[in-house]
Amino acid sequence: MITEAGKKYLTDYSGETQEILESFLNEKSKEASSIGPMALEVLKRFRTIAIGGKRLRGGLFCLGYEAAGGTVTDEILKASLSVELFQTGGLVQDDIVDQDERRRGVSSLHVQLQPLATNKNLRFGESLSIFMGDVAMFWAYDLLALSGQPAKNIQQTIHAFSLYAQTTCLGQMMDIDISGKLDASEKDILSVMRNKTAIYTGVMPLVLGAKLAGCVDRKQLKAMESYGLSLGSAFQIQDDILGTFGDESVTGKPVGNDLREGKMTLLICHLFNNGNQRQKELLKQCFAHQPVSQDQILQVQNAFRSTGSYDYVLSLAKKYVSEGLKEVPAITSQKRLQEILSSLLSYMLGRIK
Amino acid sequence: MITEAGKKYLTDYSGETQEILESFLNEKSKEASSIGPMALEVLKRFRTIAIGGKRLRGGLFCLGYEAAGGTVTDEILKASLSVELFQTGGLVQDDIVDQDERRRGVSSLHVQLQPLATNKNLRFGESLSIFMGDVAMFWAYDLLALSGQPAKNIQQTIHAFSLYAQTTCLGQMMDIDISGKLDASEKDILSVMRNKTAIYTGVMPLVLGAKLAGCVDRKQLKAMESYGLSLGSAFQIQDDILGTFGDESVTGKPVGNDLREGKMTLLICHLFNNGNQRQKELLKQCFAHQPVSQDQILQVQNAFRSTGSYDYVLSLAKKYVSEGLKEVPAITSQKRLQEILSSLLSYMLGRIK
Repeated sequence: MITEAGKKYLTDYSGETQEILESFLNEKSKEASSIGPMALEVLKRFRTIAIGGKRLRGGLFCLGYEAAGGTVTDEILKASLSVELFQTGGLVQDDIVDQDERRRGVSSLHVQLQPLATNKNLRFGESLSIFMGDVAMFWAYDLLALSGQPAKNIQQTIHAFSLYAQTTCLGQMMDIDISGKLDASEKDILSVMRNKTAIYTGVMPLVLGAKLAGCVDRKQLKAMESYGLSLGSAFQIQDDILGTFGDESVTGKPVGNDLREGKMTLLICHLFNNGNQRQKELLKQCFAHQPVSQDQILQVQNAFRSTGSYDYVLSLAKKYVSEGLKEVPAITSQKRLQEILSSLLSYMLGRIK
Repeated sequence: MITEAGKKYLTDYSGETQEILESFLNEKSKEASSIGPMALEVLKRFRTIAIGGKRLRGGLFCLGYEAAGGTVTDEILKASLSVELFQTGGLVQDDIVDQDERRRGVSSLHVQLQPLATNKNLRFGESLSIFMGDVAMFWAYDLLALSGQPAKNIQQTIHAFSLYAQTTCLGQMMDIDISGKLDASEKDILSVMRNKTAIYTGVMPLVLGAKLAGCVDRKQLKAMESYGLSLGSAFQIQDDILGTFGDESVTGKPVGNDLREGKMTLLICHLFNNGNQRQKELLKQCFAHQPVSQDQILQVQNAFRSTGSYDYVLSLAKKYVSEGLKEVPAITSQKRLQEILSSLLSYMLGRIK
């Protein structure tokens, strides 16, 4: 059953948190301006990126809180922004690592900041952005600490947050290691998908929301983990597909970026293992860090179709969706939440259908 | 009254925490190995840097805990490592920003990791190190969360930690902004010294330790802040002096690094404002990112002496020490702790006398 409930939940959530996020960033800008003008400037630019995004993770945080029996108040909406700011902080650092120039439809943070250098420092934008990423992560913790919930819940939530955040960064390290390696195994790519993306995208927000509401029900938390892994994995596959087949006006990133960066995705892995010699050569050329042409992108798109790579990863994503659906009843018995959780899974595939 | 009590406290603290730190890193290495071999390798290299250091901040954390009436147990020693790991994580990212190749007597993390790249990624070591820095910061939070103290204390400590960590990174941004600018004002340099260094070096550990012990005494916390600012400022001046006059075998960093990096210190600011034309030219040459020669370092050393820059900053450091001493009685009435706190202030100047 595919409904619009998931999409609507996220749209509502985005609307409800917009002012809260802006007011939080205003407050932080005041603190930054007491440190100095460049600190304030960095926050100002960070804001252009932070206010974008689908807020999938923040929405899931609130769903986890609700599923654990809590009622979402403004205080909880504010706390839920912790996972959003963690995400934005990570993206800011990720864009340095990947040398990505666009993010959420605007220039990435280090690209925005570089022209402000007055000291001939070619790493000016990157250096500031590394520390801005850190600051966003401290904010994430602080929003949990200041959530007004029972201190025991906060302590448990922060502990879980630290472990998930650790896994995300260790997963990132593995991704950096297999990057550009066309012979990386599917097993390694699946492991990166799980640790680098699925856990912080799907599992972490749900579980943190639940723990902040005081949830200690192991069965329920386990169902959230399984659901979250499925959702996060389907999300990553969708992201991979959009990386080659998407539209920058929707994704906020140039098409073909993954190819230019030598990012190892399931799509590329399948094509490299199942394509003909010419197709393998095409991938090798794209990965050689030359600018990837529109024509090459078209050729890769065609190869993904003709070798069945596209169908393969899509069927995998569908499998994740159906596995995730099975977990929904164990997460919550509330019909409204069940519908939203089910709908969100399908929504993961919505943009690529 | 200068005694060895401060130095002894730190030496004892280092000894007592060595096994705890190693066992924590072992535990984390196990978690990393479940993610993948490169994640484990990064942690292994991080360890070579993490086990070094004077552990001034961790020691201060325990002093804060004791001053607030707590008794330091193994659990608290472990929690105190949070400020040490925060520091090491920050240094790892700092070394990327400053392109520093040595840290605590070994190669900096990104330099250690770069040769492990098998994918022609010239930013391999740096990329991994950015995320390792993040991971160390998550550990810092987790060590507080798992400290076994009352949840309310943990929540308060984590909130304070987030604010101090934010100030540190915003201070870093200001430092990056004034870097290479010989005409930066002394006011700006003092502000960076306070926000980037003194707060996280002196104020943060003491206050976090006290808060973890449940301290809510405003007067006591205020005295810790003032003392910590004085200590941290004296520490920075000592560090600046050692940067030009020190010995790599003691500092773990090559002499002249600050000059090569265009780091704006009080010493350099004073020399630039009070030196003759030849001395100003000398600084400009050193700042022009050419390799700085031994001869140039000697010339700068002589200029620091002849223009009175050295005496100026040394007198400033002494002023901080005497201001800090005045705060000691308001921090604690325990004579043993008073002696250690007083002694630590003098110890800040010990290495440069």
